[in-house]
Amino acid sequence: MEKSLKYILPESELPKKWYNIQADLPGEIPPPFNPAKGQPSTPEELLAIFPKDLIMQEVSRERWIEIPDEVYEIYKIWRPAPLIRARRLEKALNTPAKIFYKYEGVSPAGSHKPNTAIPQAYYNKINGINNLATETGAGQWGSSLALAGTFFDMNITVFMVKISYDQKPFRKTMMQLWGATIHPSPSEITNYGKAILKEIPDTPGSLGIAISEAIEMAVTHENTNYALGSVLNHVLLHQTIIGLECKKQFEALNIYPDIIIGCVGGGSNFAGIAFPFIQDKINKIKKTEIIAVEPFSCPTITRGKYAYDYGDTAKMTPAIKMHTLGHSFIPAAIHAGGLRYHGMAPLVSYVKELGLINAVAYHQIPVFEAGALFAKTEGIIPAPESTHAIRCAIDKAIECKNKNEEKIILFNLSGHGHFDMVSYEKYMNGLLTNYELPQEAINKALEELPEVKL
Amino acid sequence: MEKSLKYILPESELPKKWYNIQADLPGEIPPPFNPAKGQPSTPEELLAIFPKDLIMQEVSRERWIEIPDEVYEIYKIWRPAPLIRARRLEKALNTPAKIFYKYEGVSPAGSHKPNTAIPQAYYNKINGINNLATETGAGQWGSSLALAGTFFDMNITVFMVKISYDQKPFRKTMMQLWGATIHPSPSEITNYGKAILKEIPDTPGSLGIAISEAIEMAVTHENTNYALGSVLNHVLLHQTIIGLECKKQFEALNIYPDIIIGCVGGGSNFAGIAFPFIQDKINKIKKTEIIAVEPFSCPTITRGKYAYDYGDTAKMTPAIKMHTLGHSFIPAAIHAGGLRYHGMAPLVSYVKELGLINAVAYHQIPVFEAGALFAKTEGIIPAPESTHAIRCAIDKAIECKNKNEEKIILFNLSGHGHFDMVSYEKYMNGLLTNYELPQEAINKALEELPEVKL
Repeated sequence: MEKSLKYILPESELPKKWYNIQADLPGEIPPPFNPAKGQPSTPEELLAIFPKDLIMQEVSRERWIEIPDEVYEIYKIWRPAPLIRARRLEKALNTPAKIFYKYEGVSPAGSHKPNTAIPQAYYNKINGINNLATETGAGQWGSSLALAGTFFDMNITVFMVKISYDQKPFRKTMMQLWGATIHPSPSEITNYGKAILKEIPDTPGSLGIAISEAIEMAVTHENTNYALGSVLNHVLLHQTIIGLECKKQFEALNIYPDIIIGCVGGGSNFAGIAFPFIQDKINKIKKTEIIAVEPFSCPTITRGKYAYDYGDTAKMTPAIKMHTLGHSFIPAAIHAGGLRYHGMAPLVSYVKELGLINAVAYHQIPVFEAGALFAKTEGIIPAPESTHAIRCAIDKAIECKNKNEEKIILFNLSGHGHFDMVSYEKYMNGLLTNYELPQEAINKALEELPEVKL
Repeated sequence: MEKSLKYILPESELPKKWYNIQADLPGEIPPPFNPAKGQPSTPEELLAIFPKDLIMQEVSRERWIEIPDEVYEIYKIWRPAPLIRARRLEKALNTPAKIFYKYEGVSPAGSHKPNTAIPQAYYNKINGINNLATETGAGQWGSSLALAGTFFDMNITVFMVKISYDQKPFRKTMMQLWGATIHPSPSEITNYGKAILKEIPDTPGSLGIAISEAIEMAVTHENTNYALGSVLNHVLLHQTIIGLECKKQFEALNIYPDIIIGCVGGGSNFAGIAFPFIQDKINKIKKTEIIAVEPFSCPTITRGKYAYDYGDTAKMTPAIKMHTLGHSFIPAAIHAGGLRYHGMAPLVSYVKELGLINAVAYHQIPVFEAGALFAKTEGIIPAPESTHAIRCAIDKAIECKNKNEEKIILFNLSGHGHFDMVSYEKYMNGLLTNYELPQEAINKALEELPEVKL
């Protein structure tokens, strides 16, 4: 093992099932709630925007869910993704720790997002749906659904947060090349968008607003559904392919990670790498330390409240129980756009409440420092979101050095930074900011939580 | 085989030696020539800018050259590169042909260029050199050498063609992130650059000028060498790792390609995939059709002359015998910047003269059409250079359809297009041009070839 660097599974070892953590959790996660009706949401209510198969996965308690052949064949374009030992980073840190990273940037869209975009498009297609609407911030999710759309010959409409639409034209071009239609959000093509534009004509937009527009389109258009890139149970389920592959790769190496790290926005890449290992933790087989890393500017787990809240700004979604900063919370304009979400996946929130994971938050400049060190030692330029996981992995490796511990650290390198060079240029020119976040800003947004009586 | 899509070699199968085609060629390629001295260049003359080990490789007739451990370990970050069957493209074309592509975009710099940047940096380092100067057009080569520089802790100076420096700021940022120093070329820091700027202050620059500046820096600075990203024998040697892997992958599939395709600028990615197969052709084991694809705007093989010419504009290099359009030829501003070179690798030129390969040239719009179709069917967005190979593969697959032939087609997908979205946006908006190239433009440049009497 000492000599080798990269661990690729033989293709025949690509897992054929996703892992559903709901089968192993003690208790059940609190159900979605419809505040307007004053009672829990029914699966039927979700049929207006999601296909039956995905709703079934959302509520399933089956431990293993078969990956359909059509999805499996597309996964194989870039999966199994490599597990790489960061030997040069270890050397630069002079640490006895062994650092491994799972590299999800090998997908055509450059991140882990296609892992769920592909099955979401597939299940919609076989349920008779030809049109999908979604939102995107920095563009990772929108481009992944656009990619899925081209594979299944579907029409994809993406509401792209206006400031990103203007500042990140290349992600937009990428989506258009894959055949998607892109609107800056807020747009003139939904009632909610029009209302916002009337109120604040020069708004930069937000992810919450874009979600509301996409849902409105799904609800009001024929043969059109909505697709979400994180947060929901079925999204996290699809991402478990990441951790399942890692488990097989570590098995082949005859080792097991002591520490597992992922960045969290909505929680999907973190859940993807962590949940298959959390299974062993629930079953008391292992005591792995598992850490979710969030930006200081959007500290959903570390400073938010575990409470029912809406997933979007217009309150169109059911209320779900999660760590939240309040659906009206608007995070500072950090470059890790994919982590700027006010809530956290209910399943991630639940395992946090159970004490199965920890969470930490980092400022913007130290995460970019970590990203730059990683690029200089390992070569790969990480997405700003992924640099949060790298920062934490580095800090843990330094801790190992100080304590002279040979721990095995695994983190998820969820995407590459090829479309984020503006951020790196700003970093190198000393133009990045560590935004402070006064408690009052959080408290104010938390005042608007919906009333839920179960 | 029918079911599977991607073929990754087990890491243990990564070739440990490069293949030197000079061992198998009938006859010897014509030697480099020093027009100033009126006699062939000696290996000693090259010591001013290249390390001894690389000069030895340049002139070696050994068939197999060992890959040093230090290089091998870095290769393993992204190698073995996947061989992927383009099933969706086949289906879109309704062809009985089987289309395979070798994907070199998985390297941290996004192309095949690190295959040679890494060993070049390594051999310079062990020969006591800490500083390398080079040129870059679109930025693929410059960023690859910058990457190699960070791995071996060397100072890399890149002269970037001015128009690219201004138009492609992200490749520049990428190189800076890896620690390289970038100058727009022509620059004020070389005599040649200053002279050009005095004559034409608003020149957009050219690859030939940038090469001259980099060589001048290597010649005039202590502990500084020059590194070239294509053309030379040792560069092509390093790239044979591509074809050697392909051979093993096809062996595992128990098939052999009937047609092999690569795009050509200086010739290195084409040579990389083709030379190990040309060995079988020389040995009469196989009759594979091997095709070099060039842009219509820079038709070095299809319309150039096989003659001695300089590699750069300032005539600093030895004259080498190659297909050339003349060292003063300036190709139209096509988006495939990596193919805008007036000459062709002497080894590629030689195998063309021997009838071992063919060449074709394509206009800009049809290659982008091919690139867009590839992105929509296979998901991966190709570099504009690589779209030339795709266009040819598609045309061959259509030919197979018309003749009802089940041929196996292999092409080199030499890089991704993540830094070329401006080109794709122009393509989608109908703003690309098919540049015509009058014969007089070529004839004029060919008048300036050096006189060589052997």
